[in-house]
Amino acid sequence: MDKIHNALQYLDSHNSRFIDELKEIIRIPSISFDPAHNVDIQRAAEWIAARLESAGLSAVEVIRTDGHPAIYGEAMQAGPDAPTVLIYGHYDVQSPEPLVDWRTPPFDPTVQGENLYGRGATDMKGQVMACVCAAEAVLKAGEPGVNIKFIIEGEEEIGSRSFRQLLEARKNQLTCDIVLNPDAGGMPDPKTPVIVYGLRGGLGFIVTIHGPKADLHSGLFGGIIQNPIHVLSNLISGLQDEHGRVMFPGFYDRVRPLDEEERAIIASLPADEGFFRAQAGVPALWGDPDFTPVERISARPSMDVLEIHAGQPKSAIPAKATATIAFRLVPDQDPVEIQAAFQRYIETNLPPTVTYEINGRRGSRGVITSRDLPAVKSMQSSLEASFGKQPSFQRIGGSIPAVLMFKEVIGVDSLLTGFSLVDDGLHGPNEKIHLPTWKRGAMAVTHFLNRSF
Amino acid sequence: MDKIHNALQYLDSHNSRFIDELKEIIRIPSISFDPAHNVDIQRAAEWIAARLESAGLSAVEVIRTDGHPAIYGEAMQAGPDAPTVLIYGHYDVQSPEPLVDWRTPPFDPTVQGENLYGRGATDMKGQVMACVCAAEAVLKAGEPGVNIKFIIEGEEEIGSRSFRQLLEARKNQLTCDIVLNPDAGGMPDPKTPVIVYGLRGGLGFIVTIHGPKADLHSGLFGGIIQNPIHVLSNLISGLQDEHGRVMFPGFYDRVRPLDEEERAIIASLPADEGFFRAQAGVPALWGDPDFTPVERISARPSMDVLEIHAGQPKSAIPAKATATIAFRLVPDQDPVEIQAAFQRYIETNLPPTVTYEINGRRGSRGVITSRDLPAVKSMQSSLEASFGKQPSFQRIGGSIPAVLMFKEVIGVDSLLTGFSLVDDGLHGPNEKIHLPTWKRGAMAVTHFLNRSF
Repeated sequence: MDKIHNALQYLDSHNSRFIDELKEIIRIPSISFDPAHNVDIQRAAEWIAARLESAGLSAVEVIRTDGHPAIYGEAMQAGPDAPTVLIYGHYDVQSPEPLVDWRTPPFDPTVQGENLYGRGATDMKGQVMACVCAAEAVLKAGEPGVNIKFIIEGEEEIGSRSFRQLLEARKNQLTCDIVLNPDAGGMPDPKTPVIVYGLRGGLGFIVTIHGPKADLHSGLFGGIIQNPIHVLSNLISGLQDEHGRVMFPGFYDRVRPLDEEERAIIASLPADEGFFRAQAGVPALWGDPDFTPVERISARPSMDVLEIHAGQPKSAIPAKATATIAFRLVPDQDPVEIQAAFQRYIETNLPPTVTYEINGRRGSRGVITSRDLPAVKSMQSSLEASFGKQPSFQRIGGSIPAVLMFKEVIGVDSLLTGFSLVDDGLHGPNEKIHLPTWKRGAMAVTHFLNRSF
Repeated sequence: MDKIHNALQYLDSHNSRFIDELKEIIRIPSISFDPAHNVDIQRAAEWIAARLESAGLSAVEVIRTDGHPAIYGEAMQAGPDAPTVLIYGHYDVQSPEPLVDWRTPPFDPTVQGENLYGRGATDMKGQVMACVCAAEAVLKAGEPGVNIKFIIEGEEEIGSRSFRQLLEARKNQLTCDIVLNPDAGGMPDPKTPVIVYGLRGGLGFIVTIHGPKADLHSGLFGGIIQNPIHVLSNLISGLQDEHGRVMFPGFYDRVRPLDEEERAIIASLPADEGFFRAQAGVPALWGDPDFTPVERISARPSMDVLEIHAGQPKSAIPAKATATIAFRLVPDQDPVEIQAAFQRYIETNLPPTVTYEINGRRGSRGVITSRDLPAVKSMQSSLEASFGKQPSFQRIGGSIPAVLMFKEVIGVDSLLTGFSLVDDGLHGPNEKIHLPTWKRGAMAVTHFLNRSF
């Protein structure tokens, strides 16, 4: 069991090669959104496969999908009695546009001080490589306490389109006790590791209000035609009270209450009103006064109109108005129930002067991973061993489609951690990873894979 | 005084040449909006000038402006004791796009049955030519009872941009007792002539609500940031009650009440709920139940959001939301007062979570021409003499910038009539003029110019 020292030693002594390899994969512009980069996607997938092999994994395979390929690899030497950890990641990246905002070329990784800049550095080529290096260290110098599987997809930034189908097709191969997903980082500072144990789900609609059959001259018709923009504004306005609480019946019925322990955990996070105000750049925060800001963005549901469009630069009452309205859901809200209640709200409040149309997107539930799972406890110790500090437990307000898919298809929970800092600029210009934190993260994963739970 | 018979005879015997000339001017695609057509604009202006000369007008001039030229011509032989009529028109046209909707080429005028199809046929080359032909008939075969002046501009379809400046520069030359403006037609049928004695004014704002400094991930921030779209929706929603009455203080204070005589005139128009419902293609009309539909669109003010735009196809709370909000004003509402009251409404109702910006457009008052003016009485008789039926008096809901400019710069009222039918499709595809109505209109103008008032 003190093989762990050898593994950590290995990690340390190969650090500069590991950084070179991270640069190598960042250099491949694997932008999943843009078909012009399909060749790069393919190159990145093959690079990852080769890298898993060189790390000591076997049964490595580039798996074709209807979209971009995924990569599988495994190391089962811990044996049938040991738990199995499936490490999830993605090798695709967001577009770096607009390029003018970058201080260094996004696909020419550049070290400045302790940071490595480049698209994908933190989201999530850096995170994937931390796990691959940790696995290599454990397999080559340590003694794995768990069986290790990798599944690295190429479509996370475009909604993990083919991933559900892949999980269904490879259900047996991907059997595991826990998914380790390092895509949910956001450490408040380099000293404080984070375990994310809750994510919100989502549900969105495109609502169109149809008024007159064509745009009408507002001089000739103004006063007798109810304008679709006004109808839509009334509907949006009526959805919330002045504190943003959703007003239609049933919305909060199933929301899992926060217990005292959770409220205490949330209260311990170093994120107050001023922190969020500065991050968002708003004169004042807003929301339900019965909950703190962190509670509101993580453990409470929310509603936002993401887009609204109507009219054209003419003096006309428009024929229609369209809005995209999205809900963030928390356990145990049911997207199907909320969708029905939302539709009832629209129908009940729609005036007889217009007609409507709703197009729904697939909804997803919020998820919570128990903080008491053995795998979570093991990661807690591993993070403490590496960072010298207990991890901070967080729920976050976004969704990770893969987490829900693993739960629904394989029936397995995800352990969410990650070694990105809140200021790493994921999806933005000048994305970076903090190299000392990255190395410490790889050490934590080395601990985690070298022990059992 | 029975020279009128000669004039009408002249009009009749030259009818086929007049139709050919109307086709000729329609063939010139004088689209004022598109600089690619500046050559056509120039050609059309010169064509009009030549045509005024051949009609017997003198002092004909193509007047340069900062934009497109205007044309002036006069026939002052009625003498200093006779009243002077200034005939206003425009030779520019709207773009015919989208071309696919036209059954015949828009600039290849085509007679089908009693209609002549082509862009500008009714708005308003046909109306201008009716007046030119009438003037020719009176000058060549009749005996003018009034002095005649023409001013034909080339920028009506782009807001009469240079017209105010032109009026200011040519104030003395354009002195007159009444402006005859045949741009406000809309006869309900070929038998019923119309005199428009009221127009609404207008006032518009572009309102922008600024929230966070940049678009924010709606998962990570949803629940603590007041969304600019919601704020804008609340403001729009609060502007009107459920019947469309504008809710901010002072809006109706100066609205001139409808007296019984006017309500009777309005009630006599053949336009009921079903008529408007079918025209607009809506399931139900809407608006203040204390007024009839025609009263609401002509003698009552209204408010419409013409455009609203915010957000983009990402899961983000947008940094800002923008709407164009426009009021139609009636006498004696003051645009400056309404603007101040609107701004107070925004300021009073703006939450502290956002900031705002308002950009106003120049407002204009509503106008009413007394139905008792001698010129109006004279046109009333002229229309009756030509159509065999008393004209219907109407107020309409749109604005004609030139009418207000004549009032403000020259201090003169406009007499609004016109010989287009409600189904002539102005600004739309397959614009047409009904040739028998056009001819009857020219006869009415012949009567009008051949008598005094």
